[in-house]
Amino acid sequence: MSNTLHIYNLDRPNAAALRKMAGRDPEIRKDTVTNRWVVFSPARARRPSDFKSKDSANPNHTQSECPFCSGHEHECAPEIFRFPPDSTVDWKIRVIQNLYPALSRDVQLNPSSDGMVLTGFGFHDVVIESPVHAVHLSDLSPSEVAEVLLAYKKRIHQLSFHQSVKYIQVFKNHGASAGASMSHSHSQIMALPIVPPTVSSRLDCMKGYFEETGKCSVCEMSVKDLLIDESTHYISIIPFAATFPFEIWIVPRDHSPHFHEIDSEKAVDLGGLLKLMLQKMSLQLNSPPFNFMIHTSPLQVTDSLLSYTHWFLQIVPQLTGIGGFELGTGCYINPVFPEDAAKVLREVNLPK
Amino acid sequence: MSNTLHIYNLDRPNAAALRKMAGRDPEIRKDTVTNRWVVFSPARARRPSDFKSKDSANPNHTQSECPFCSGHEHECAPEIFRFPPDSTVDWKIRVIQNLYPALSRDVQLNPSSDGMVLTGFGFHDVVIESPVHAVHLSDLSPSEVAEVLLAYKKRIHQLSFHQSVKYIQVFKNHGASAGASMSHSHSQIMALPIVPPTVSSRLDCMKGYFEETGKCSVCEMSVKDLLIDESTHYISIIPFAATFPFEIWIVPRDHSPHFHEIDSEKAVDLGGLLKLMLQKMSLQLNSPPFNFMIHTSPLQVTDSLLSYTHWFLQIVPQLTGIGGFELGTGCYINPVFPEDAAKVLREVNLPK
Repeated sequence: MSNTLHIYNLDRPNAAALRKMAGRDPEIRKDTVTNRWVVFSPARARRPSDFKSKDSANPNHTQSECPFCSGHEHECAPEIFRFPPDSTVDWKIRVIQNLYPALSRDVQLNPSSDGMVLTGFGFHDVVIESPVHAVHLSDLSPSEVAEVLLAYKKRIHQLSFHQSVKYIQVFKNHGASAGASMSHSHSQIMALPIVPPTVSSRLDCMKGYFEETGKCSVCEMSVKDLLIDESTHYISIIPFAATFPFEIWIVPRDHSPHFHEIDSEKAVDLGGLLKLMLQKMSLQLNSPPFNFMIHTSPLQVTDSLLSYTHWFLQIVPQLTGIGGFELGTGCYINPVFPEDAAKVLREVNLPK
Repeated sequence: MSNTLHIYNLDRPNAAALRKMAGRDPEIRKDTVTNRWVVFSPARARRPSDFKSKDSANPNHTQSECPFCSGHEHECAPEIFRFPPDSTVDWKIRVIQNLYPALSRDVQLNPSSDGMVLTGFGFHDVVIESPVHAVHLSDLSPSEVAEVLLAYKKRIHQLSFHQSVKYIQVFKNHGASAGASMSHSHSQIMALPIVPPTVSSRLDCMKGYFEETGKCSVCEMSVKDLLIDESTHYISIIPFAATFPFEIWIVPRDHSPHFHEIDSEKAVDLGGLLKLMLQKMSLQLNSPPFNFMIHTSPLQVTDSLLSYTHWFLQIVPQLTGIGGFELGTGCYINPVFPEDAAKVLREVNLPK
């Protein structure tokens, strides 16, 4: 909530001095994947390495047990599946219906005659990532994170058989100010009857890039000074026009349109890199509330689309708020240049 | 931060009961102005009349004076103009440069060869709405609010002479969690070297509507059950596919592409309706943090565009947060149906 629209902070040196310190004037960059313009404005920031969340997502203090805990299964909405499949009280992951779904699996999809209203058909499920209340996703081993990722994959496969489902959004909210109302570690899967605007806009932008260059714009992202870490099959990177400070993308090295094509070996590799990014972010930025989203391709796609669409996982620590400028224009102000954020995260040393 | 992505709240009745209470299933609506899809999901809400901000923007407690107060002018960045023009310590409104501008008026606009980077040229100004620290915009009389609106108009006129300025965004952040770092009542004006994405997308959507129907989609908005209040020249309304709960639009009755065409008489009329909306929102929703944005047309426009573009002022109380679903899809979940929000605000009785 602190930097996006700061006007005055009398504790800070003045703008000219800060700009000199940062060594550069503000810059406006356009992202080749999201098609978004972002204003990079170092005069409004502390030093990149001083960025910390004021609002540390330090949950699990007020409660030690909740409906997501082992032994409380009867307090939840119906289960869809669990892992391991034949487990009882010793389950490791449960995929359940959301007790307060935003969309309903019980209504018939029914567009109005003018196409401006649809009945609220869809699926809204929850993935409980651990049976233990205080365990975070980043506490799990790479193979255990992989099991969570493979639970997403399995549920996406199931949902993809519904003709009316056009797009599936997997996301995680961690910390109250990132939208999580339960502190017990979980993520969510929403199956939508439309291809949402962010996805259409991304596909249009990537199509334009492909038509111009013959290349996939995500395949082309790997630039040395934006790289944070890498594994056998993935890289983690700050995008060239990152919308938010310290926003991280994890990108498959090989061109791959759909997340749910992932196999078990790649899932362990991705699990390790995701864990590392969450650990680095937590250590460097004071355990910020965060969101992650898997940006994949629509379910029904043409072959031509497959050549330019490429899934990735986006992690957004909640360090700055959204104000009238962002609401009005759809542009964002990011006080940290991507190459500075990448350097800071590259150099984080985790305790052994 | 409370409703967008609530999953469980065990104090509340269950989803089926709430849905029955709300009397309807979820619905997905598309807005004919912003082109945005919004999920209306009453199962996730309290009753519309129970909506209150938990995070009341009750500022001015920690300080009684600040750099925006009368007598502290020397602590501010340079003044652009004041009202009345010949006032000294008895000024009523000051328009000044932002001490920490996101964009710089001192750099040359310079696009990179591939068009993906621009130097951060632009203007970022502040309108101090009153010389007194604890006075809010809604405390001013309609004529005094009009003076603030006419200060926006005057500054827009000045900025419109710069060839490189393509769009001017006027906005106000009220309350820390709405992005305001100064509690002293102020608004901001940013002059941008690009037409931002929200604006392009709105113009495209309104163009499509016009080509299909021959009408301006904002002119067509006035639907009885969405109306809150009206004045001689304006109506206040909840849009049919409101992105946020209790989001309010103030719309000129007569077709009018640019805000800065406003005259003094209309400014007083608008000042009265804006004051009324801020008062009603504050009373009904427990003084929430809020943003307002003036959505106008780009500065350089063709005549054909003038037939379908129509400015409006959007007020957004900050009652719900943005989580992974919104970040991932660009769709929003609104727990309050627009016709319910309109009824609640229509019926607010202000103390005499």
